[in-house]
Formats: sequence, C-alpha cells, structure tokens
Amino acid sequence: MPASVESMPARIAAYRARVEGVLDRWLPPTERVPQRLHAALRYSVLGTGKRLRPILVYATGEALGAAIERLDAPAAAVELIHGYSLVHDDLPSMDDDDLRRGRPTCHRAFDEATAILAGDALQVLAFQILAQDPAFAADAPVRAHLIELLAEASGTDGMAGGQALDLAAVGRQLTIAELEDIHQRKTGALIRASVLMGAAAAVERNAGRLSQLARFGQLIGLSFQIQDDILDVEGDPATLGKATGADRAKDKPTYPSVAGMAQAKHRCRELHALALDALADFGPGGDVLRWLADFVIERDS
Amino acid sequence: MPASVESMPARIAAYRARVEGVLDRWLPPTERVPQRLHAALRYSVLGTGKRLRPILVYATGEALGAAIERLDAPAAAVELIHGYSLVHDDLPSMDDDDLRRGRPTCHRAFDEATAILAGDALQVLAFQILAQDPAFAADAPVRAHLIELLAEASGTDGMAGGQALDLAAVGRQLTIAELEDIHQRKTGALIRASVLMGAAAAVERNAGRLSQLARFGQLIGLSFQIQDDILDVEGDPATLGKATGADRAKDKPTYPSVAGMAQAKHRCRELHALALDALADFGPGGDVLRWLADFVIERDS
Repeated sequence: MPASVESMPARIAAYRARVEGVLDRWLPPTERVPQRLHAALRYSVLGTGKRLRPILVYATGEALGAAIERLDAPAAAVELIHGYSLVHDDLPSMDDDDLRRGRPTCHRAFDEATAILAGDALQVLAFQILAQDPAFAADAPVRAHLIELLAEASGTDGMAGGQALDLAAVGRQLTIAELEDIHQRKTGALIRASVLMGAAAAVERNAGRLSQLARFGQLIGLSFQIQDDILDVEGDPATLGKATGADRAKDKPTYPSVAGMAQAKHRCRELHALALDALADFGPGGDVLRWLADFVIERDS
Repeated sequence: MPASVESMPARIAAYRARVEGVLDRWLPPTERVPQRLHAALRYSVLGTGKRLRPILVYATGEALGAAIERLDAPAAAVELIHGYSLVHDDLPSMDDDDLRRGRPTCHRAFDEATAILAGDALQVLAFQILAQDPAFAADAPVRAHLIELLAEASGTDGMAGGQALDLAAVGRQLTIAELEDIHQRKTGALIRASVLMGAAAAVERNAGRLSQLARFGQLIGLSFQIQDDILDVEGDPATLGKATGADRAKDKPTYPSVAGMAQAKHRCRELHALALDALADFGPGGDVLRWLADFVIERDS
C-alpha cells in the first residue's frame, strides 16, 4: 500500500525527533570538560532547525530499503556539518549575523573564539560518528564511502568553496550561471550528499537509481537556496527566526537580485518539476521524497 | 644491520620531502575555483614546517614493516589537521598572531574570512584523503580505523578541546596536572595519533606493541609542548620564525610559568627517558623513533 500523503507530516516529524535523539547521544555532555565548548556545540545543534538534510537521509534510505539504524549516523553527520557551517558563516568576519533560528548566534551567545572552535569540533564530530557508529562495524566499505561523500560535499568543491565564492561575490555583478554555481556548492552539495548518503547506507546498489537520486538531490538543493533568497525578501522575520533583507543590506547577489523575483520563482518551480521527473522510476516508495521536493519550495521558514 | 644514527637526518629529510610532494598532489591547484581559497590552503601548508607529525607516521609505519605508499595518506592527513589548527589558532579572536614560520599568518596574508574557511577546508581535506587514497582500496577496515584515530585526536577530547582549555586558562593559576592535561589535548593527542596511525597502516597487529607506541606518542607529545613553552622564553626569534615571549605577553600559563624553568627542563628529560623506555622492545627498528624523541626536546625551533 502506498504511504498516504496525509501521513507525510507525521513521518517527517518522526525523522526529526529521531535525529534529535541521535545528535543528543553523540554530542558530548555539557558536564564534560571543556564544558563551555560542549555547551556551545549543543546550543548550536540541538532544539532548532528544519533538519532537512537528515530527513533526506532517512527518506532516501528507507525508500531504498535501508534499516533505519543504518541511517542514524549519516543523518546526524550531515546535520553536524550543516550546523558547523552556520556557526562559522555567522561570524563577524563572514556574514556577521546576530540572530539564527530566533536565538543569538553562537558567537553572540558565547564568544568568537568559542564559536570558531565549536564549528571546528562539530565538523570533526561528523566524521567521528561515521567512523565509529557500530551499525557499520561489519561493513567498512560503506562506512568509508559515507565519509568520502560527506568530505567531498564539505570541502572546497562543495560547501567551504561555495562560502568563499559567496563572500567574494559581495558587491559584484554575477551571471545567473555563476550564481547557480555558488548556490550548488554552498547549499546544493550537502543536500545532494544527504540523498546519496541515505542511498549508500541502503543495501540496494543500482547505478541508475543512484544517478537519478544524485540529480534529484542536486535539483532540490539548488531550489532550496533560491527559496532561501526569496524568503530573505518576502519572508516574515518572526517565522524565519532572523531578520530579512540581510542579503540586500550586504550587497550580496541573490537569485531575485540577479534575475528578478518573477524569474526566481519560475526557476524554483522548474527545478521542482525536474526533481519530480528524476524520481519517475521510484513509484510510491518515492512519495516522501516528492513531498520533500514540495516542502523545499513551499516552506515559509 | 641496524640503521646507523648518522643516516637519521637523511632519512628524516627524505620523509619531509616525501610528505611535501604528497601534500602538493592532494591540495587543489591555485588555478582551480575558488582560487583565493586554494591559494590560502597551499600558503598555509606547503614549503614550511618541521613535519614532525608526518615523520612520526612514516617512522612508526616503516618500523612495523608498512609499505611507504600506505603511509602517505595518513602522513598528509595529520599535517593538514596540524596546519588547520595553526591557521585557526592564529586568528585575532584566538591567539592573535601575526607571524608563523617566519611569514605572515594566513589571516594577515589573506583575510580573516579566508583564514577561517581555509582552516575548515584543510580539516575536511584530511578526512577526504584518508577516505579516498587508493592504497586502502582493498582495506576498508584500516581506512576506517585511520579516520577514527584522526577524528578522536582532533575533537573536543583532543586538539579542539585543548585549544578551548588553553584560551580559558589565560590569566588563571593552573596546577601542573591541569597544564599537562591541556598540553596533552592541544598537542599531545595529534602527535600520539600520528604514531598510532603509522602503526595502523602497518600489517603487524600486536596489541602490546600498540600500547607501547601509544605511550611513546603520548610522552613525546607532552615533551614537545613543554619544549615549545621553553622556546617561547629562551628561543631565538629568527630561528623560531616568530616572536618569543608571546605566552607571557598573553598571560598564558606555561610549564615554565607554572613550575619554573628548571622543573620544565627536568620534566622534558624525564618524559624523554620514559619515551625511550616505552620503546625498549623495539630493537634497532625503533632507532628512528628514538632519534625523534631526542629531536623533540633538543630542537631550537
């Protein structure tokens, strides 16, 4: 029986609750030395966030028949990488943001040195979890492949490179192709990796399916960042948990500023349609991924 | 025939040249986008540095019979983690240093945002190299174990935690035990991991030897940091490539400031003797490690 569309929000909520528990278990307790650093790690990761990336790990992995226990470590790892990137991106010498998810950013709640170290420690914890999770004790090749996927998405060809290009783009005129390249690296690479890591943890190994999933991940990753750009113009600060207009104030090129708002929304819908096409062979098992493709461009926060 | 002590400097120089080549091959070329970030990575890692950690990987691995090709990735990885830690530690909100190895620090030569991203990217590259190096294509369990050793040494129980404790110690009175704990985490953990990763890449699996090597790594790691403290007082700035007196200027507790210079030197010699004891079973194969134990406390830079 296909999963009904009505059950999707409950399923997503269950994934969200599950990764919260996994993160809570892997993050060192605040009582452990160095306490202030551990408090900063937990503050930066627990209790807030959409958890889109771990949800994609769970949804893709379960669609391909993975036991959910094999998805916990990759789900936590992608969220830790995402969390570390937010902590570092918010720093004064980067985007200089005071508010994140409705709370003071890490360097505001703690201090700048602690925020730098917290980001560093969140990044390495992501790799440590993948290296240590007992679910892969008898499956070292999959463990190594998960680590490879995460590293590729996080480095200079992916997220860190995208942030560097994003900072370099301030005040410059970009073409749409240049902007899409930045978005792909900065946001798209980790979202794509989340889909691929869910697939890698599954038993099924079908090269055709993997390339369809890679394409799906890439398309929703780009649409996610364009929707982010749109929300920075049209979103509600209370719902978003941060001020809007930040991109314009910083003179950052965005999809609406480069291509116009109408084109930005059109591109989102186009990417959404292409993402659904990429799932054409997946049958009802892909319903949760389809629901997530909708969510990415319909979300208001 | 035992390796002669006379040949040691040549052997060390060969290891140093080898890891330079390995790093050069893995670091993205400056021509590749994002160019400025890639330039910062190469600037921070290539052409300078004692390379103690990779030398320990090579020396330990070869002492246990590992083919040198299996030691390249772990050697490069430990140096990348060390390089990232220097880039981040030098930042204005951390130790605020302008000079490193006789050259402007990364955030001085580039800018603060680039230095943060360069550190982030160096860290992930370390894990990427371990995840991708073809030498472990048919040996995923060892690959995973190398990643685990590196992650443990880099996180809040190791290097990142040590730096947090080091910053928190500024202006405070510490006991010798507290100071040694900070030193063990901040410097000792990665030096110990370098020894253990060299051993992990070797075919020989002998639990007794591993625990002796872990002890050796821990002891020389601590003696390395105490010698660093001593050089910050008695060293020659031209030889060191950085200003001396920085610890005192920042009111940072060091071994000489907590225990006195005589006791600091005594403790170095004591740790050195204990480190040699730990190698008692290693015969002539351990000569290069013994030479390195000497080097750590006799070095002037």
